[in-house]
Amino acid sequence: EKPLPLDPKLKSSWDNFHDQIELIFTKDEKLNEGLSKDNMKARMERLVRATQEHVCYEAEQLELEACRHSGYFITLHFLKKNKNIIITVLIIVVITGAASPHSGGLTKVLSNGKVFEKAGVSVSVSSGSLSPAAVQQMTADHVELKQLLVIFCLFGQKKLGDEKGNVEFFAASVSSVIHPWNPHAPTGHFNYRYFELGDVDKKTGEFVCKVWWYGGGADLTPSIIYDEDCAHFHNTLKQACDPTDTSLYPLYKKWCDDYFLIQHRNERRGIGGIFFDDLTCGTNDTKNSKERLMGFVKDCASAYAKAYIPLVRRHAFQTYTPEEKDWQQLRRGRYVEFNLMYDRGTKFGLMKSGSRIESILMSLPLTARWEYCRDPVHDFEIAAHKVYTNPHDWLANATKK
Amino acid sequence: EKPLPLDPKLKSSWDNFHDQIELIFTKDEKLNEGLSKDNMKARMERLVRATQEHVCYEAEQLELEACRHSGYFITLHFLKKNKNIIITVLIIVVITGAASPHSGGLTKVLSNGKVFEKAGVSVSVSSGSLSPAAVQQMTADHVELKQLLVIFCLFGQKKLGDEKGNVEFFAASVSSVIHPWNPHAPTGHFNYRYFELGDVDKKTGEFVCKVWWYGGGADLTPSIIYDEDCAHFHNTLKQACDPTDTSLYPLYKKWCDDYFLIQHRNERRGIGGIFFDDLTCGTNDTKNSKERLMGFVKDCASAYAKAYIPLVRRHAFQTYTPEEKDWQQLRRGRYVEFNLMYDRGTKFGLMKSGSRIESILMSLPLTARWEYCRDPVHDFEIAAHKVYTNPHDWLANATKK
Repeated sequence: EKPLPLDPKLKSSWDNFHDQIELIFTKDEKLNEGLSKDNMKARMERLVRATQEHVCYEAEQLELEACRHSGYFITLHFLKKNKNIIITVLIIVVITGAASPHSGGLTKVLSNGKVFEKAGVSVSVSSGSLSPAAVQQMTADHVELKQLLVIFCLFGQKKLGDEKGNVEFFAASVSSVIHPWNPHAPTGHFNYRYFELGDVDKKTGEFVCKVWWYGGGADLTPSIIYDEDCAHFHNTLKQACDPTDTSLYPLYKKWCDDYFLIQHRNERRGIGGIFFDDLTCGTNDTKNSKERLMGFVKDCASAYAKAYIPLVRRHAFQTYTPEEKDWQQLRRGRYVEFNLMYDRGTKFGLMKSGSRIESILMSLPLTARWEYCRDPVHDFEIAAHKVYTNPHDWLANATKK
Repeated sequence: EKPLPLDPKLKSSWDNFHDQIELIFTKDEKLNEGLSKDNMKARMERLVRATQEHVCYEAEQLELEACRHSGYFITLHFLKKNKNIIITVLIIVVITGAASPHSGGLTKVLSNGKVFEKAGVSVSVSSGSLSPAAVQQMTADHVELKQLLVIFCLFGQKKLGDEKGNVEFFAASVSSVIHPWNPHAPTGHFNYRYFELGDVDKKTGEFVCKVWWYGGGADLTPSIIYDEDCAHFHNTLKQACDPTDTSLYPLYKKWCDDYFLIQHRNERRGIGGIFFDDLTCGTNDTKNSKERLMGFVKDCASAYAKAYIPLVRRHAFQTYTPEEKDWQQLRRGRYVEFNLMYDRGTKFGLMKSGSRIESILMSLPLTARWEYCRDPVHDFEIAAHKVYTNPHDWLANATKK
């Protein structure tokens, strides 16, 4: 079977989510009761939780359709109860993290579905104290943050942290890795996060934020390259970036290509997307504002399902050859290499005491493969490898056609 | 089927290899022609090459028997030509490394055999110049070596290396990872290596060795624990260590348990064996001598096939359940985690420019698996997990019975 065309009717569903998020943030007075507009922590927590719900819901819908597609109702692993259809629930994984005081995590994993081999969407909201060693580790990966901390120390009259060098933090993040079975359907990943570092006011005992930043991005990892898919993914991300600033997409596209490099092979794990970190601004910054940057992150987070899910939908039921499945498994091996060896989040997570190992390694595929001296052989392999080693400008190609 | 008993008739073959090695080193004048007894480089090169031949030969024999076992002659992937039997050779991989001047590598990989999923035995003999950064990386992992270098700098009248801090080196090593198909048959690994660091004599242009050391070890990774297997493996290694010094086995057994720890899971990848590094001695050391340490490494290297191959032989044709195969695949995932995240050799190899990535990652299994929140369930899983988290004294258990 050929890939299905993108279904325009579905578009309303994605746009609808963006409107809902917009509503939560700006319009619905009841929802915002008790939340002042600059309460970034609470709003970011809402955003990450809503994004998780949304992406999980879309994945579930696809699983439900998959059951109808094959003409019979198989046992279904799913994440959220659906009122309209009675289905057998095999896995509902709801785990609350206990890494630090006042922390809450919610990991959702769909395993062994009909469409998805392994799909994880994870939310983590946590706060507590970072040791001097953890702060050092963090600043090593965050060059701009380090500069911020220097500025803070120079102008803020006192050093960040208590006498022992412990620094208080707050973090809210949503992240997801989705691996479909079909080798024609790409693996998708996104992560959006908000960080605050600060002190405890000795008089009031309250947390006072001193440095904050956003980070995140979304990237696509197809084993078999469909130019139309790549262009759709990148274009959707660009549409999400452009309202804030049209300079962001090209900048973050390049950052993404640089970040997802498997250094020892000099090839990328996929075809990229966007990546950014240390996104912050000064209090007197007239061009940027915390509000504006929050809007940017919100636009990106709410665009993910729209960028990714249609690509799985197109290819989920496509026929494939054993050679195509084998190649997918080899690329899964590359995914494992990147995540275990280079990914900042995985490294930081595993080094932080009290982390949930299973949440961190949720991103690994169900199965992976390594063959000795296995160079690309088939045309689809050679074409894909060419893209992994030479990042494309997908939108330039799209407008040319 | 139950595991086969260890075959006493085979014992002669293993002992025979040890005698051959002994012959090469001490008795056969013709073989030693042109090699003075203290020419450690040339002798170590012979040892690593002979060990590779030996382990590959044993693996091949098992593959040949596997063909007879199932009653028909399947296409066979093998490594060395066998004069007595006409067989189809599908893979002969012989690659000469080109990492540095005067280097020579020989990697042998048997893939997709009847007994072995992936079996690699690799030899590397190389020399050249290490950059100051590479020397720093090396000393970070070698605490005792660092002390040696300090002593050398204090007493040697001058600093090691040229004006730019480049240090000349020589290295000869043999390493192997063998993954059988059958989940009852354990994965085996060994590595023995010899290192020299030194200067080039400005008058003669010849390399002058200033610091040298041996390193290596062997360890076993069963998915399903057979106490008898573990005891046999450890006992064979102990027998190889004891002639040099009976204090070595307990010391290196513990080092091995400490080294093969997957830190983020606080469990070992297998049931251990022996591990040592930075093994050297002063020129006036009366207890140790370079010759004596060479003898120790030779005894260990020549004992490996005897320690490992019989265990594969016992279990290669045992029937197994899908649950047992699944568990093996999950343990393969742990193997990947250790090798990519913690193994010194892998990390050093991938950071060194000009390395052969394929040789370094040869140790990865053909396939591996990760399931979310997959705790040990079946009795054999729980029993194995208990051993990975609490290293056993296998020989104490053996004598008790």
